[in-house]
Amino acid sequence: MIVILKDHAKQEQIDKLKAFLMQLGLRIDESKGDHSTILGLVGDTTRVDADLIASLDAVEAVRRVQEPYKKANRKFHPEDSVIDCGGVQVGGGLFQIIAGPCSVETEEQIITVAKAVKEAGATLLRGGAFKPRTSPYAFQGLHADGLRLLKLAKQETGLPIVTEIMDAAHLDLFEDVDVIQVGARNMQNFELLKVLGHTDKPILLKRGLANTIQEWLMSAEYIMAGGNDRVILCERGIRTYETATRNTLDLSSVPVLKEKTHLPVLIDPSHATGVAKLVKPMAMAATACGADGLMIEVHNDPKNALCDGAQSLTPEQFADVVRRVKAIREVVQN
Amino acid sequence: MIVILKDHAKQEQIDKLKAFLMQLGLRIDESKGDHSTILGLVGDTTRVDADLIASLDAVEAVRRVQEPYKKANRKFHPEDSVIDCGGVQVGGGLFQIIAGPCSVETEEQIITVAKAVKEAGATLLRGGAFKPRTSPYAFQGLHADGLRLLKLAKQETGLPIVTEIMDAAHLDLFEDVDVIQVGARNMQNFELLKVLGHTDKPILLKRGLANTIQEWLMSAEYIMAGGNDRVILCERGIRTYETATRNTLDLSSVPVLKEKTHLPVLIDPSHATGVAKLVKPMAMAATACGADGLMIEVHNDPKNALCDGAQSLTPEQFADVVRRVKAIREVVQN
Amino acid sequence: MIVILKDHAKQEQIDKLKAFLMQLGLRIDESKGDHSTILGLVGDTTRVDADLIASLDAVEAVRRVQEPYKKANRKFHPEDSVIDCGGVQVGGGLFQIIAGPCSVETEEQIITVAKAVKEAGATLLRGGAFKPRTSPYAFQGLHADGLRLLKLAKQETGLPIVTEIMDAAHLDLFEDVDVIQVGARNMQNFELLKVLGHTDKPILLKRGLANTIQEWLMSAEYIMAGGNDRVILCERGIRTYETATRNTLDLSSVPVLKEKTHLPVLIDPSHATGVAKLVKPMAMAATACGADGLMIEVHNDPKNALCDGAQSLTPEQFADVVRRVKAIREVVQN
Amino acid sequence: MIVILKDHAKQEQIDKLKAFLMQLGLRIDESKGDHSTILGLVGDTTRVDADLIASLDAVEAVRRVQEPYKKANRKFHPEDSVIDCGGVQVGGGLFQIIAGPCSVETEEQIITVAKAVKEAGATLLRGGAFKPRTSPYAFQGLHADGLRLLKLAKQETGLPIVTEIMDAAHLDLFEDVDVIQVGARNMQNFELLKVLGHTDKPILLKRGLANTIQEWLMSAEYIMAGGNDRVILCERGIRTYETATRNTLDLSSVPVLKEKTHLPVLIDPSHATGVAKLVKPMAMAATACGADGLMIEVHNDPKNALCDGAQSLTPEQFADVVRRVKAIREVVQN
Repeated sequence: MIVILKDHAKQEQIDKLKAFLMQLGLRIDESKGDHSTILGLVGDTTRVDADLIASLDAVEAVRRVQEPYKKANRKFHPEDSVIDCGGVQVGGGLFQIIAGPCSVETEEQIITVAKAVKEAGATLLRGGAFKPRTSPYAFQGLHADGLRLLKLAKQETGLPIVTEIMDAAHLDLFEDVDVIQVGARNMQNFELLKVLGHTDKPILLKRGLANTIQEWLMSAEYIMAGGNDRVILCERGIRTYETATRNTLDLSSVPVLKEKTHLPVLIDPSHATGVAKLVKPMAMAATACGADGLMIEVHNDPKNALCDGAQSLTPEQFADVVRRVKAIREVVQN
Repeated sequence: MIVILKDHAKQEQIDKLKAFLMQLGLRIDESKGDHSTILGLVGDTTRVDADLIASLDAVEAVRRVQEPYKKANRKFHPEDSVIDCGGVQVGGGLFQIIAGPCSVETEEQIITVAKAVKEAGATLLRGGAFKPRTSPYAFQGLHADGLRLLKLAKQETGLPIVTEIMDAAHLDLFEDVDVIQVGARNMQNFELLKVLGHTDKPILLKRGLANTIQEWLMSAEYIMAGGNDRVILCERGIRTYETATRNTLDLSSVPVLKEKTHLPVLIDPSHATGVAKLVKPMAMAATACGADGLMIEVHNDPKNALCDGAQSLTPEQFADVVRRVKAIREVVQN
Repeated sequence: MIVILKDHAKQEQIDKLKAFLMQLGLRIDESKGDHSTILGLVGDTTRVDADLIASLDAVEAVRRVQEPYKKANRKFHPEDSVIDCGGVQVGGGLFQIIAGPCSVETEEQIITVAKAVKEAGATLLRGGAFKPRTSPYAFQGLHADGLRLLKLAKQETGLPIVTEIMDAAHLDLFEDVDVIQVGARNMQNFELLKVLGHTDKPILLKRGLANTIQEWLMSAEYIMAGGNDRVILCERGIRTYETATRNTLDLSSVPVLKEKTHLPVLIDPSHATGVAKLVKPMAMAATACGADGLMIEVHNDPKNALCDGAQSLTPEQFADVVRRVKAIREVVQN
Repeated sequence: MIVILKDHAKQEQIDKLKAFLMQLGLRIDESKGDHSTILGLVGDTTRVDADLIASLDAVEAVRRVQEPYKKANRKFHPEDSVIDCGGVQVGGGLFQIIAGPCSVETEEQIITVAKAVKEAGATLLRGGAFKPRTSPYAFQGLHADGLRLLKLAKQETGLPIVTEIMDAAHLDLFEDVDVIQVGARNMQNFELLKVLGHTDKPILLKRGLANTIQEWLMSAEYIMAGGNDRVILCERGIRTYETATRNTLDLSSVPVLKEKTHLPVLIDPSHATGVAKLVKPMAMAATACGADGLMIEVHNDPKNALCDGAQSLTPEQFADVVRRVKAIREVVQN
C-alpha cells in the first residue's frame, strides 16, 4: 500500500500517521518528491482501512499495491481449483454445462427437460425453486416443493442439481442440493455468504449486477474465509447504459479472472442477454475466451405452449449449442 | 401495455396471442400500420409478464404504458405520505436530519455524538450495529451490543434511532429501533423485504448501487404489498464510470420521485461522495432540489483521534451544514 | 410511434395535437384505456421529433415502434453488404483481419510490421498517422509523413491500408488510403461524417466510448444519407464502471447488429482491453459470436526494445491468434 | 508516479527499466516489500506514458501521484480564473446566467427571447446556429444566418452571445461571437480544441457524455496548451444506466472541480435532464453546491405554439428560477 502525503502536510501529522502505521506492524519506506512525499507500506496490509487513511488531513491519496483477497488469489494458490459437484468436476481444464428451466413448475416439466438436456450433453441440471423477482406480484417459485421435484429429476437422470438460495433461513431445505447458487442480487448479502462459508456445499456465486471483479472476488473470499473453499464464479452480464440487451455480458472477465484467481469461471448467456437468439453466439464466444463451462436456460417445448420464456432455448437449439461449443473447446485447448 | 407485432407474423400466432391476452381479462385495441400492427392492451396489466410476451415469435417489442407499482404510485395516492418515526414526522413538507456515527463503537462515543448532533439540529440518530463490509476481514459491527448502546443514546437524548438490518433472522433484536434501514446492497434482498412488509416499523430503503428508480419503487412495493406502508426512500449515490467520487449522487432522482411516488425522499451525501468535504455542498444541493431530509455521518472528535472516518463530519462542521440547509429550505418553500 | 396521453389531458390540447400530427401526413389510431388514451401514429415517423411531442402538456410519454434509421436498416436491405476495400471484400460471409502498429513511426518499422502481418495472415494493414491522444503533451502522430510511409508499405506488400482521419480538413491527404477510419471520439462528429458521406471511400466507423447501438447506426446513417453506402462498423469496447479492463468489450453487439443492419461488423480487441494478453482470448470470442473480422495491433519486436505498447502483440503472437481464429471461424460457418 | 514491479521480475528487466526512466530525467526511489518492489519516480512525469510502462513484462501496475494536467491545475494556479466574456466576468465569486433558445429560428424569435431573458436576469444569451443532431434527417440549424441573427439580438439587448462551433473550418464565422461553445460530443475532438487554443475567445467546454473529470480537464489543457487560458467548464449530465432522466446530472463534479482547477464551472440543467419541470430544482441544486453560473434553455412562448421544446422554460418560469437561484446564492456566499 502506498500513501501519498499532501504538499503542505504538517510534520506533526505525518509523525502521528507513521506511528499509527508502525503500530499495525508495517514497515515504512519514504520517498520525497518535489511536490509530494510517498510512504510505501511493507507488510500485511489486508486489514488496513485504506479509506480511513485517505481521509486524514495529511494524506492526498492511497493506492493499493496488493489485492485485498488472499484465499481466492492465484498468487497464493497457483493451481486451478477443481470443485467436485455431486461427482462432476468443475474447473481444472474440464468443461461443464449446466442446463435446465428457469423455474421448476411441475414434475413432468422438470423430468422432461432434465432428460432432454442430459441427452444433449448437459452435465448438471439447473432449475429455480426460489425465484428473485423484481415485482412482488410475480410468481416466486414452488419453494420446498420445487426442491423436491428437482431431487426427483436427479434420481431419474443422475444429473447433480444446481439451485438458488435466497435466505440463509432456508438452508435446511438444500441438504440434497449439489450446488447452491447465490444470485446476482445477493452477491453482497454478506450474512448469507457467511452462513454458506460454514457449509461444505459447492457455491455457484453469480456476479452482482454492477459489481467489479474485485468486489466479486471479495464475496468469494467471504465464503472461503468461513472455511468453504468450493466456490465457482458465474458471470451473467453487468449493468451498462446499453439497452439493446438486458445486460452487457462482460466476457473479458474470463481471462482477467483466470489470471487473478484459481476458482472456476462459468458464463450464463441466458440471463446476460435476456434473448434466446443471442444465447448461441454468446455461449460460443464464452467458450472461445476460456470459460470453464456454461449455464443455459432450456425449457420443454410442448407444441402450442404460449409461454416459452424470453431467454430459454428448446432442447434442439440447446443440442446445437452444445455441438458448437465442444468444437470450439477443441480449438481453445490445442 | 402495447404489443408491437412483427411485420410477417402469422395470423395463427396472432390469434393465439390475442386469445391468451383476453383470457387475462384485457381488452385489445388493434392499430394496423404500414410496417407493423400494434395491440393496445386495456385493463390491469400489472401481472402481465412483459418479457414473456416480448419473447413470442409474433412479437417485435412490448412497451409498458403504466408503471408496474401501485401502492407506491402517486397516481393512486396523490397526497404525500407522512411517516411517524418514533414521534418525528418524515415527509409532507417537513424536513428532518438523521445524523450520527458510521458505526456504534462505545457507550461514550454514541452518547457524545448523539448529544452533539441533537444540539446542532439533528432530529433522528443513526449508528451502525450491523455493518455491511466488502471485506470479511474488516470490522463487522457490535451487533446486539451496538443496538443496546443506541437505545441508551435514545434514552439520553430523546432522539429516535435509525439502524441497519442485514438479515431477517435478526429482526427480534430491532424491537426498540424506531426506523429499520435496508442498505443499498440489500435493496433487492426480496426475502428480507417480505419480512419487513409484515412489521409495523418505518423502513428506510436505500437505493441499490446500480438500481433504476423504477426497481427501487418496486422494492418499496414489496414492503408495501406485505401491509407496511411506512417506507422512506434514501438516495446514496449510484455506480457510474466516474471515479473522482465514490459514487455519483443522482440528485435528479429527487424531483423525479416526487412526481412518481408519495413516499418521502431523503439524501445521504456522506456515502454518496465518500469524502467529508463534499458532504456540505451536496447536502445543500439535496435540500435545494426538494429532498425531505438528509442522512449525514458525524463522528465525535476527541483531540488527537487518528481514525475519523473518510466521510464523517465533526459536530462543528455538521452544525454549519444544518444552518445552511435550513436557510436553503426557506428558499425552497417560499 | 405511439403517443400516450395523460389521464387528465384537456380535449382542446388533444385536438390541437391530433391536428398537428395529421398535418405531418400521419394517420392516427386511438385506443382509450381506463387510465390513459393511446394514439398510434401510422406513416413515416422518421422526421417526427419524439422529444418534442413528449414535452407537450397533454402527453405522458412517446414510444417509438420503428427504428429511426433507414439506409442502415436490414429491414429495407435484407442482404449483407459487402464492401470492397482496395480489392479485399469485407462482409457477406468473408472474414478479414486488419493488423499493424498503433502508430506509424519509421519506414523500417511500418514495412517490417506490414510484411510480418501479411505473412501471418492479415489481409489489410492498419497504422495511425493522426493519433487522438488524451494529453496535448503526448505524441500526436507523423501526419502527412505517416500517410506517405503507409503508402510505401502498401506498395511493398499489396495490403490495402486503413488509417484514421481526425478532421475533415485533412481529407485531401487520404487520397491513397483504402479505408478511412473514424475513431470512437469522433463517432458523433457530425460535420466529419457529412463530409465522408460525400466521398466514395469505405469508412470504418468505430463505436463511441459510451454510445448505444442505435446511436452508432444513426452515425452510419449520416454517412449513408450523403450517398456513401460503404460503411464498416467496428466495436472497440464501451465505458462501464469496471476498471479491470480499459473498456468493456460488448461482444453481444455483434449478433444484435447482425439482426438490425446489413453492414459488416468488426471487433478491435486491442483497444477494448488495453492489455496484450487479453487480445487472443477476446479475438477468439469475437470470431465465435459471428464478427466479420478483426482489427488487431501488432508491433515489430526488435530484441531489447523497451517500448512495445501495452496492447500490441508480437508477430508470433499474432500468427497464433490468426491460426485459432481461423479454426473457430470454421465452427461458426458449419 | 509509482511503478509496482512483479514478484518475479528479472533483474535484467528491472535494470533496463530503471535506465530508461533515468534517461527521462527522473529520480528513482526504491522500496522492497515482501511480495513486490516499488519504484517511486521523482520529477516531471507529465510526459511519461503510463500505459506503456504498465505493459512491460517486469511491471505489475503503475499509479499516478500527480495529475497529468498543469495549466488547468489549481496547484499551480491557486487563484480562481475570471474570464471576461464580452464584458461579463465569469468565475471568481460572481454568478452568471446564460439563457436563450435551443436553436435560433427567426429574427423575431431570438430578439423576443433575448429581451425576455435579459429582463428576467440573464447576463449572457445562448442560441444554437450549428446544431449537433443524432439524426441526419433532423433540423441542423441556420448556420451563418443564425449567427447573423444572434448578432442582431446582441445589438438589441447588449447581452454577449454564446454559441456552439462544430467544425474548425467554420471559425471565421464566429468573429463576433463572445463565447464559443464546444459541445459534449466534441469534447475530445482534439483537432478542434487545438484550433481554439490559438484563438483569443473564451471557450465554454461542455463535459463529454461519458468522460471523466480528469479527461475533461485534459481537454481544457489542450486549449490552454495552445495559449488560450480562457476556458469555462460546463457540466451537462453524464451517461448512466438510469433512464428516468436523459442523462444523470453529476453535481458532485462542482465541488470536485473547485478543488482541482481554477477554471469557472457552470451547470446546464436543461440538457442534463431533458425535461422542463426538472430544470428548476436542478438549477437550484447546482447553485447550492457552488457552481459559478447556469446555462438554461428558454423559448418564446407565443400563445398556441405547439412546439415548445421538451426541456425549455417559458420566460415566466425562467424568471422564477432566477429569483430562487439568487436567494440560494446568498446562502452559499454567507
